[in-house]
Amino acid sequence: MRLLVVGSVAFDAVRTPRGAVDRMIGGSATYFSVAASYFTQVRVVGVVGDDFEDEHHQVFIERGVCTEGLERVPGKTFFWSGEYSADLNNRTTLVTDLNVFASFEPKLPPHYRQTPYLFLGNIDPELQSHVHSQMDAPHLVAGDTMNLWIESRRPQLEETLRRIGMLIINDSEARMLSGEHNLVKAARAIRAMGPETLVIKRGDNGATLFRNGEIFSIPALPLEDVFDPTGAGDSFAGGFMGYLAAHLVPGITPAPDVLRRAVIYGSVMGSFAVEHFGLARLRKLSRPEIDERYDEFRRLTRFD
Amino acid sequence: MRLLVVGSVAFDAVRTPRGAVDRMIGGSATYFSVAASYFTQVRVVGVVGDDFEDEHHQVFIERGVCTEGLERVPGKTFFWSGEYSADLNNRTTLVTDLNVFASFEPKLPPHYRQTPYLFLGNIDPELQSHVHSQMDAPHLVAGDTMNLWIESRRPQLEETLRRIGMLIINDSEARMLSGEHNLVKAARAIRAMGPETLVIKRGDNGATLFRNGEIFSIPALPLEDVFDPTGAGDSFAGGFMGYLAAHLVPGITPAPDVLRRAVIYGSVMGSFAVEHFGLARLRKLSRPEIDERYDEFRRLTRFD
Repeated sequence: MRLLVVGSVAFDAVRTPRGAVDRMIGGSATYFSVAASYFTQVRVVGVVGDDFEDEHHQVFIERGVCTEGLERVPGKTFFWSGEYSADLNNRTTLVTDLNVFASFEPKLPPHYRQTPYLFLGNIDPELQSHVHSQMDAPHLVAGDTMNLWIESRRPQLEETLRRIGMLIINDSEARMLSGEHNLVKAARAIRAMGPETLVIKRGDNGATLFRNGEIFSIPALPLEDVFDPTGAGDSFAGGFMGYLAAHLVPGITPAPDVLRRAVIYGSVMGSFAVEHFGLARLRKLSRPEIDERYDEFRRLTRFD
Repeated sequence: MRLLVVGSVAFDAVRTPRGAVDRMIGGSATYFSVAASYFTQVRVVGVVGDDFEDEHHQVFIERGVCTEGLERVPGKTFFWSGEYSADLNNRTTLVTDLNVFASFEPKLPPHYRQTPYLFLGNIDPELQSHVHSQMDAPHLVAGDTMNLWIESRRPQLEETLRRIGMLIINDSEARMLSGEHNLVKAARAIRAMGPETLVIKRGDNGATLFRNGEIFSIPALPLEDVFDPTGAGDSFAGGFMGYLAAHLVPGITPAPDVLRRAVIYGSVMGSFAVEHFGLARLRKLSRPEIDERYDEFRRLTRFD
């Protein structure tokens, strides 16, 4: 197994202009795992309650994701409910019931410790560092964070940032973390905090990668029907890291071309995620469909 | 002379986070002409007052732009004043003194009528149609518009749209004109109104071209220092149309590759425009600088 992710596994209720779903499996680690599973072998570390049934496990199993690190404890699984605005640009959280996630203390099964690629999903930065401490020198550590931790857990987050090589966050988080509106300045400030590589996810405006003097930027695929933006960012991270875990060579600095392809595969997985509610589209893909959409990005952006 | 533009020639006062300028030459036709002049020969149709001095004329003259169509009448030149927010995303208009522009009735010098490429800058759509009516079958007619005309002059704007082959507007205008938030749907609706090609300018999120089944999308160049966004959209249109006027073959459908290159050159000129106040940067460029920035777009977006 090549790639380990720690993050939330949840039940979501969402309402979007295209409809509503009362309860479906979600969570950052779930979207990430499923997206990454098309590229590499994935292990997930998280916690669920005793309401997490076989059919929910099936989402991981059918994609070959190892769930030995998915702890099951008495109580209810993390539940989140949200509603999107008509233009999908704004999301209102209606319910956040942390449930068993409130006392989550990620423990890695011993044989997980040698996994070469680690993704620290969006959880308390102290837990992110705790997971990292349990690992035996992974080749690459990447992570995500959010406004909550930037505001309330700054010292812990700075400790996490010193440990990771790649940070994958959205534009508003990058601005908040750096205190800079301009994304070039924001990227410089964030990279000075630790991560050598920064990927800024910009929703329907695409994604931009910053690394040393290099910037790679890609628009989003123009989609006519967006059903549900939930999980798009986590799916991006899963596609990006899954591709890297499959193609990087340990001990060798990532080649710019490989990083660029990883950004495209991330964008591809993000674009699939929003085309149906929850994981409905993402879990039923084939590799040819994924590569066809990669080609679509090429046609979208190509010029000579 | 290949390209004719009609639009505003103005004095602007702007305040941005990087400073303020009390009075400098601006206007949509001015930015457009100067940007286009690096690619092709340009004629400008507009009106100025008797406060428009030789030094202001010089902006056109030094770029080889023909100003025979720039009428000079008694009174003051159009004056606009605006202020940008700290993040540059919002602009507040402080003063709009139309002055001589209020009674502008564009009259084309007779030898202007055979100009093969026409750009109808952002003026009352009735005047846009009036200019078009004076032309002898131009090869390509493109145009711009704005929220004011979309709201207050809808029937006249629809008449203009039936006359033009390409529309170059920003994303908020595209949404307002079509009533669709989704840009793919917006583009379909707008193209059904007349223009075969639609270019949507998206500021620091880049630009997207729609034509038949084809979509071409490009991010903006990440810039660390934006001094003054005024005129960026007009400079984009100037670079785009200037390149087309120099490279299209009359009677032959524009090749996709040529249109794509035109979008890049438009983006290049827009990126230069914002790097200093007013026309300060744009009027002092060299073709090698422009082509170097074109290559920068290639490096920014290239993947295999």
